Amino acid sequence: MKNDLESLFKPKSVAVIGASRDPSKLGYAVLKNIVDSGYRGRVYPVNPQADNIMGLKAYKSVLDIPDDVDVAVFVIPAPIVPEVLEECGRKGVKYAVIISAGFKEVGGEGVEREKRVVEIAKKYGVRVLGPNILGLIDTHTPINASFAYMPPRGGIAFVSQSGAYLSAIIDWSVKTGIGFSKIVSLGNKADLNEVDFIEYLANDSETKVILLYLESIANPRKFIEVASEAVRKKPVILIKGGMTEAGARAALSHTGSLAGGPQIVQAAMKKAGIVLVSEPTEFFDSAIAFSLTSSLPGDRIAIVTNAGGPGVMTADLVALAGLRLAQLTPQTISYLRSKLPPMAALNNPIDVIGDAKADRYEVALDAVLNDPNVDAAIVIFTPQVISEPEKTAEVIIEMQKKYPQKPILAAFIGGPRVEKAIEILKSAGIPVYESNDRVVAALAIMNRYRVMRERVMKMAEALNELSSLANVDKRCVEAIIDRVRSDGRRVLLESEAKDLVKCYGVAVAPTKLARTEEEAVRIANELGYPVVLKIASPDITHKTDVGGVIMNVKSDSEVEDAFRTIIANVRRYAPQAAIHGVVVQKMVPKGREVIIGTTKDPEFGHLIMFGLGGIYTELFRDVSFRLAPLSTYEAREMIAETKAYTLLKGFRGEKPADIESIVNTLLRVSKLVIDVPQIVEMDINPLFVYDEGAGSLAIDVKIVIE
Amino acid sequence: MKNDLESLFKPKSVAVIGASRDPSKLGYAVLKNIVDSGYRGRVYPVNPQADNIMGLKAYKSVLDIPDDVDVAVFVIPAPIVPEVLEECGRKGVKYAVIISAGFKEVGGEGVEREKRVVEIAKKYGVRVLGPNILGLIDTHTPINASFAYMPPRGGIAFVSQSGAYLSAIIDWSVKTGIGFSKIVSLGNKADLNEVDFIEYLANDSETKVILLYLESIANPRKFIEVASEAVRKKPVILIKGGMTEAGARAALSHTGSLAGGPQIVQAAMKKAGIVLVSEPTEFFDSAIAFSLTSSLPGDRIAIVTNAGGPGVMTADLVALAGLRLAQLTPQTISYLRSKLPPMAALNNPIDVIGDAKADRYEVALDAVLNDPNVDAAIVIFTPQVISEPEKTAEVIIEMQKKYPQKPILAAFIGGPRVEKAIEILKSAGIPVYESNDRVVAALAIMNRYRVMRERVMKMAEALNELSSLANVDKRCVEAIIDRVRSDGRRVLLESEAKDLVKCYGVAVAPTKLARTEEEAVRIANELGYPVVLKIASPDITHKTDVGGVIMNVKSDSEVEDAFRTIIANVRRYAPQAAIHGVVVQKMVPKGREVIIGTTKDPEFGHLIMFGLGGIYTELFRDVSFRLAPLSTYEAREMIAETKAYTLLKGFRGEKPADIESIVNTLLRVSKLVIDVPQIVEMDINPLFVYDEGAGSLAIDVKIVIE
Repeated sequence: MKNDLESLFKPKSVAVIGASRDPSKLGYAVLKNIVDSGYRGRVYPVNPQADNIMGLKAYKSVLDIPDDVDVAVFVIPAPIVPEVLEECGRKGVKYAVIISAGFKEVGGEGVEREKRVVEIAKKYGVRVLGPNILGLIDTHTPINASFAYMPPRGGIAFVSQSGAYLSAIIDWSVKTGIGFSKIVSLGNKADLNEVDFIEYLANDSETKVILLYLESIANPRKFIEVASEAVRKKPVILIKGGMTEAGARAALSHTGSLAGGPQIVQAAMKKAGIVLVSEPTEFFDSAIAFSLTSSLPGDRIAIVTNAGGPGVMTADLVALAGLRLAQLTPQTISYLRSKLPPMAALNNPIDVIGDAKADRYEVALDAVLNDPNVDAAIVIFTPQVISEPEKTAEVIIEMQKKYPQKPILAAFIGGPRVEKAIEILKSAGIPVYESNDRVVAALAIMNRYRVMRERVMKMAEALNELSSLANVDKRCVEAIIDRVRSDGRRVLLESEAKDLVKCYGVAVAPTKLARTEEEAVRIANELGYPVVLKIASPDITHKTDVGGVIMNVKSDSEVEDAFRTIIANVRRYAPQAAIHGVVVQKMVPKGREVIIGTTKDPEFGHLIMFGLGGIYTELFRDVSFRLAPLSTYEAREMIAETKAYTLLKGFRGEKPADIESIVNTLLRVSKLVIDVPQIVEMDINPLFVYDEGAGSLAIDVKIVIE
Repeated sequence: MKNDLESLFKPKSVAVIGASRDPSKLGYAVLKNIVDSGYRGRVYPVNPQADNIMGLKAYKSVLDIPDDVDVAVFVIPAPIVPEVLEECGRKGVKYAVIISAGFKEVGGEGVEREKRVVEIAKKYGVRVLGPNILGLIDTHTPINASFAYMPPRGGIAFVSQSGAYLSAIIDWSVKTGIGFSKIVSLGNKADLNEVDFIEYLANDSETKVILLYLESIANPRKFIEVASEAVRKKPVILIKGGMTEAGARAALSHTGSLAGGPQIVQAAMKKAGIVLVSEPTEFFDSAIAFSLTSSLPGDRIAIVTNAGGPGVMTADLVALAGLRLAQLTPQTISYLRSKLPPMAALNNPIDVIGDAKADRYEVALDAVLNDPNVDAAIVIFTPQVISEPEKTAEVIIEMQKKYPQKPILAAFIGGPRVEKAIEILKSAGIPVYESNDRVVAALAIMNRYRVMRERVMKMAEALNELSSLANVDKRCVEAIIDRVRSDGRRVLLESEAKDLVKCYGVAVAPTKLARTEEEAVRIANELGYPVVLKIASPDITHKTDVGGVIMNVKSDSEVEDAFRTIIANVRRYAPQAAIHGVVVQKMVPKGREVIIGTTKDPEFGHLIMFGLGGIYTELFRDVSFRLAPLSTYEAREMIAETKAYTLLKGFRGEKPADIESIVNTLLRVSKLVIDVPQIVEMDINPLFVYDEGAGSLAIDVKIVIE
């Protein structure tokens, strides 16, 4: 159902169902907010007991309104919502904004009631926002269809699953002057959810940045798809409630939403290109910068200050935040030397020193912004004896006009002496903060978005390469799975699992299942000595622990002995285990050990893991995660993110390992789980990786199917 | 020189040298500030050109003042400072507060001028603050001997090496109402420095928390000694400018101070018990909490909120900050169930929900603060339709009175609707913040201080155990060092280094130097086969790389061969290296490899390192650092901080390693470098650690002396 939400945010007409003349009622507040917001469309109060509310003609029913209705705002008791929604459907109302509470969030009959709302909405094609919300605000239309204040107009869209938080932030915006374009309260997300709004807001010219507060993600795959398109156009910044175990417990009792594990949410956001943050302060501080300045062209930051201490601190913070202190060109430095007093520090940070008036800021800013090695500037101002706060603010504004491509962010540290300067900066659209750490945090998030956006572009390009993978045989996989299923099993034997990944072109150490001693000898001769024998049982995970593995078996008689020993050991130490025989594997040369694995999340799909093998996997948790499908770009990123990468590149004079074969294996595993989603768990552990050009081999493979 | 600074902060009389009638002069501002601050002592303007300034009799010279002078504040040009200081000396002035700039910070003759100031001060026993400072403020005396405003009175002492930052923060305090006890500008630290002030402020009843901004640490050992005493009484929080390479570069150009590497500063602060932070926002936010509330008794936090979203977010932030979400007792939960509406969330976070008035906050706060599982509470308030912000503030104040031992910190998120409530909380001394992340950050630092304070106590206890180390022979070490020195070397041979650590009771793999083949054979027989032969050359660090090591040598003839081969290899691959012979080492069983090392910093002394051995040392940087001398408590901490600890405790069914022998080795190394500070570098790498009770052996030891 195509729906661009235009007439939700810019309706020609709005009905307020439950409009009231009683100022203690929400139905009064909402109608008054719509009227007071300066909304230029037609407003129809609906109330069976009134003829006239706030000077507007009131209607007994939405059906009586002699006009089309784009949006109906519901502020009536929950029990009568379904009935009235039915009327809206018949009337042809496009959107129902259901502020009323008393649905899924209260459990019991509320759950049933919400189901009926969804059914009715579907039947008539009415799109529903809510229920259980604060409402909806568009400061540009303008319309305030909520029971909160109208925030200042600006470029930040805030979509939140917590209505109470929205009302607090709106109140705060009145104090701070932070400007919003849209405020959307999602509530129970019976119909419209974050995906619809991200899609719309991506193309909304009034919105410069999309802020999300979410506790659950309704449709993760669609979310990733839509978000990764959106972030090409503008930043999407998310606080995900319930990221930690403690938070998830709280979220559970709050909206009954199941929070995914932190790894999976982080992997999803990497794929979506969304910047995930945890602190509201950085969330809004960066939003201010995004909504006011041009995008950050790079990570090389110049600092101009009139106080050494804050300059030093800011340089530390810049480095800690993953930004770089710009290296000024010799030209810039000699220019600064010619213009600034001898005590000034000319190397970034530029300290124009305590007796600086506005002119020195102008000299320094002009020089650094003109420097090709500088991407953005931080201006730090502290009020000293002869400082000129307001004039300095004017200089900053002028310089931002002169260099529109390089954002200037300011920290004016102080109280009464900088208040007016801060107002001047704010009204000119310069992001200004009260402390230097906050300006750095905002810039750091701008930089994270810059990097994310580039990644999303590269991921999309690299995804095309994936379709060209050769030696991929889905039928071969399905045949194996069918056989395992018909055997009543979900766990594949090692030999089956190796055969399965071989169907997708993953190189494995040659392995076959032997049901008898004779068969084992025959296979050993076929593979060539020496060989390894391992127990074949779907019930045994740690084969070594039950005496189920014998290495370096060198002759027919040794094979026979080993076969018998293994069976005897397993019967003794794991008497309950079903024994399918013994797998015989060719001994292969030792390579560098890595692990590639995947697990399936019911909502997010397959999470793919890469890491260093052996005991160090657990000890150092040196692993990286991505959601399938992987692009080659992501596969490379996964490897490069780990410390294992340093080893693989050739550590301390060792030869580099065949990293390309790991990339290839990751892509094949990714393609496999996408093509055959019945695979719910897989471990290739270890994958032996040989020297560059010599490939890699899966030594053990575990697979569990649905 | 004993000096408790009492008459610096509480002088009976102050002379203002350079007092002026011209409002554009600092000499005017400083005198006016002293007068306006309500200072109750006697004030003597000194100015050769005036009889009378601001109604006070002025003197031509400090020598003319017919009274004792406790403090002389200098606001005269730098060139005449020494001469006037000489007069102050003759007059018997106790303290000179030299605001004047133009000393070390300008280089050249400024450096000389500062030296003269120090000489004169020493000669007469005048203590000097500065030069090049903002001044000094005590809000309780009260006296404002600076050219900045007077901040509000409170419990925060702020000692800063950046005067410009102080003036910005003072201006900011006027806006925010944050209260200070003392403001100290350190400037060039010609005489008085941070150590003097920490010592004084620790015992100052008007000061609840000591904030430090430092770019250099004048006397690190004394600093650690004094700070570790101070933190037993109150928190000391530090921002160290120049912690990163970028910041250090900036600090260098700022005050010419050499910033230590981050590891060494971190190790020093661990030893001192000082909480090191990087962001001014958390610095001051925590200071507010420290200055207002009682100390934090534990890390179990209860959250009471009227909005689910911020509750969930705060629970996440609490977990991320290393705090714990309190597990309420069943009694508390059932009490809450009986008192709160059915929709309320009763498990921490307690959501009293959007329609809560103040009474529900009272019920919830009373219950959680009465719960023995709760150490502190966070109250989150968002303005909803029928909320009662002011009454809720009153409830919080009342509850804090009822439960004085459990700090309550509040986040009132909003603007106009919470402004009055915030004022009410502030005037009652409840720490209140505008966002939930800031309240958590403040609590996290309170908790870091709580942990640091406990550590410092335990370290002090554990230090006594150290003196009981047996088998420590300093003469034995000195004899080796003398021999190496007389040989004109700074690098010890492996055999010498092993002998040296043996003098301090460190167990080493038996090793002797052989100068000839015959000697090698004799030693091999003495040690017992098999043996390892290694080149003995102070010039070769990586012996294996030049063919300088042969393992598993099993007979006399093999020893002869190996000796010749090694000499030949080294002559070929390292022709410049001085060859002292070959060391013969008994082959010992393989143990778990760890590394113990030390380097000497000229100011901080010896930094001791512990870490996982082998290539993983470098790859994962799995190492921990402490400054010598180590207590047993710290030695144990060092091991426990690393991932290696998981391995050593017995990973995946392995036997636990002899961790006590590592502790013992660390302590012996610590004692060695304290007793014999000529050792500037040492590596025991690897130390083989055997199973519990079986000890450990140093396999290779490198030592460099001064």
